[in-house]
Amino acid sequence: MNAVEAFDAVDLIRTKRDRGELSTDQIDWLVDAYTRGYVADEQMSAMTMAIFLNGMTRREIRDMTMAMIASGERMDFSGLGKPTTDKHSTGGVGDKITLPLMPLVACFGVAVPQLSGRGLGHTGGTLDKLESIPGWRAELSNDEMFAQLRDVGGVICAAGTGLAPADKKLYALRDITGTVEAIPLIASSIMSKKIAEGTGALVLDVKFGSGAFLQDIDRSRELARTMVELGQDAGVATSALLTNMNVPLGLTIGNANEVRESVEVLAGGGPADIRELTIALAREMLELAGVADADVEAALDDGRAMDTWRASIRAQGGDPDAALPVAREQHVVTADRDGVLVRQEALPFGIAAWRLGAGRARKEDPVQHAAGIDLHVKPGDVVRSGQPLFTLHADEPARFARALDAVAGAWEIGDAGSAVQDGGPLIAERIGR
Amino acid sequence: MNAVEAFDAVDLIRTKRDRGELSTDQIDWLVDAYTRGYVADEQMSAMTMAIFLNGMTRREIRDMTMAMIASGERMDFSGLGKPTTDKHSTGGVGDKITLPLMPLVACFGVAVPQLSGRGLGHTGGTLDKLESIPGWRAELSNDEMFAQLRDVGGVICAAGTGLAPADKKLYALRDITGTVEAIPLIASSIMSKKIAEGTGALVLDVKFGSGAFLQDIDRSRELARTMVELGQDAGVATSALLTNMNVPLGLTIGNANEVRESVEVLAGGGPADIRELTIALAREMLELAGVADADVEAALDDGRAMDTWRASIRAQGGDPDAALPVAREQHVVTADRDGVLVRQEALPFGIAAWRLGAGRARKEDPVQHAAGIDLHVKPGDVVRSGQPLFTLHADEPARFARALDAVAGAWEIGDAGSAVQDGGPLIAERIGR
Repeated sequence: MNAVEAFDAVDLIRTKRDRGELSTDQIDWLVDAYTRGYVADEQMSAMTMAIFLNGMTRREIRDMTMAMIASGERMDFSGLGKPTTDKHSTGGVGDKITLPLMPLVACFGVAVPQLSGRGLGHTGGTLDKLESIPGWRAELSNDEMFAQLRDVGGVICAAGTGLAPADKKLYALRDITGTVEAIPLIASSIMSKKIAEGTGALVLDVKFGSGAFLQDIDRSRELARTMVELGQDAGVATSALLTNMNVPLGLTIGNANEVRESVEVLAGGGPADIRELTIALAREMLELAGVADADVEAALDDGRAMDTWRASIRAQGGDPDAALPVAREQHVVTADRDGVLVRQEALPFGIAAWRLGAGRARKEDPVQHAAGIDLHVKPGDVVRSGQPLFTLHADEPARFARALDAVAGAWEIGDAGSAVQDGGPLIAERIGR
Repeated sequence: MNAVEAFDAVDLIRTKRDRGELSTDQIDWLVDAYTRGYVADEQMSAMTMAIFLNGMTRREIRDMTMAMIASGERMDFSGLGKPTTDKHSTGGVGDKITLPLMPLVACFGVAVPQLSGRGLGHTGGTLDKLESIPGWRAELSNDEMFAQLRDVGGVICAAGTGLAPADKKLYALRDITGTVEAIPLIASSIMSKKIAEGTGALVLDVKFGSGAFLQDIDRSRELARTMVELGQDAGVATSALLTNMNVPLGLTIGNANEVRESVEVLAGGGPADIRELTIALAREMLELAGVADADVEAALDDGRAMDTWRASIRAQGGDPDAALPVAREQHVVTADRDGVLVRQEALPFGIAAWRLGAGRARKEDPVQHAAGIDLHVKPGDVVRSGQPLFTLHADEPARFARALDAVAGAWEIGDAGSAVQDGGPLIAERIGR
């Protein structure tokens, strides 16, 4: 043990290994010493596995979150003179809600500083989707971000590297050591970034179901409760919706096609599930920010949300009227019989879109913005033999075979009157306040 | 996942994390991929923490052991034309038994290839002790080792780096990640080295009590049973003695002073506990090697064991008649009252000897061969006020204060007739065969 260090990493690992509780000082030291490289990756990975298997108390999770916030800068939007509100989704298949949601909330005079990420694996990234718009750029300085919140009202951009660097380092480690799915670690990771981002209010869209990060609704509820408590403890007005991710959200999975669908919603149309979830989250965000009884449906239908969208795209160098990229190759899958679509599983369709080029396997890989899947029917729809069920889009035709492998068995046509995949309601529960 | 690799490290970590069982192929791959650096340290440390907390089946432990053996060379003494037998101790305070034991067994015509290590922390190392003999060298080539076994009958030397390199790498990792005390990992670590060493028979001295690696006798018994099963499964005749490590073994803790005590035992004298344990282990080793009813006590008393000792020291460049080093400074602790010594705790005395310079904090540190502690009384002995209880030896007088701190409260004089520290019998159980 180094005389100048307050604690010894092995002692702390043993404490958690033996189901003990770490003190605030111990957690502060651990996160700080890990960030500056005194605690080694192999020590932190043993610690995260011990946390995975033995858990953390609410106090430990709060301390972990606050220590990760303290590892970097904390943004402050109090100079804007208006309330701030933000949304975070735990990620799903076809989840493009941030795109219509940001302008819809911002057009009510509430600032929406939506720091977002890129996709990894089958889960898409909001920045990847927006980057299919010619000219649009994700990287803004803090000054540019502040100016856009003041002038346009909302911004979707990349999180700066200065926010919670401890979380960035720890997340990369968890990814390769099988400790991603631990609730204390997920909760502290998400909330450290969101609290450091300086928002005054936060709505969490916590997914459950086969296409979600945590499939089981009970675990999703536990995660949601943990995060709502963390936010409230840190002085951020926080609530969560538990939402169904058994079936893809909307009719598009990819990047450019998800932007197209988002613009349809901003034009007052779009698939019913996307519109429903956008409206519900907007109401929640506005209420937490102190704007009660806003008529958010009207703002979609009368073009106010669209105006804010167009202004925000332009402010980041994008052309809202530019044609979006189209893939070089298409493959259409048709119904082989008459009947009803009874099943359409989110996860296999997400994996198929990833394999078509819409996602990336490693952080440094590019995405192909035009690749993805357009769904033509959803569970419950009547289909006729020969009717298109979905279309795969890819720049390289060699990608179709593995994408088709991914969706084999993931959809099913039944006789008229068959029971349809029971996903339950889209918004299952609200947690918080 | 790399296409040329049979498995993915994260999948295997998740399997063990979720209480699953790893297949033989998975364990073979894991150990091999870790040895060649494809599986990273941070992945292996997450895996070892999962093993620590979720355990391994007997088959998994056996596969782990065999995979670690396969990571390096396996020695073969079949060309000697005589049986081989070896002993391993889990380590204790004042445990110099290997020194008199090797020549005692070897003088009966059984080869004793005793590969040993250096000390770390409060546990002494057999090689450190022997290196206090002027000229003696621990590093032998395989050919030199073979020749000494043929000509002298026994050898104590350093294990070559070619034996179980996976274990070497894994042990260093466990040391800094709080996963040392996991029975599947301890058992596979010890047994992979001992089986790779090529011995035909093996006796394990598994310690329990306050100065032992595992204090609890139930855990020590579990470790002993696991190792005996591993040895038998690998075709090595294996048994274990569970022995008491609440009180230091013998009257010396250090290096040169432990050699002196060992020579006393080889001369037919020495402390009763050292002689008892040496004789019991020698009988066990000889029986496993097929030599029944050997009169081992006679071989200590008539000088046969001493002759083999002297020959083995000479064969490795040492002078058995040379004066052993003496420390520059002594500090004697005396009784402050008349009474009976009722308590003498092994662990604090081991730590005190370490602090005097007999042990090392880091692998690369040297040891001071003359440093250590001589005990003048043992629990149950009557003492008079002013009588020396123990003497500290150090080359640097500044070391006395911290050594005295370590033993403060670790010994106690009671009234005549007081209950004495109940260590129970020295040899508590025999396991195996």
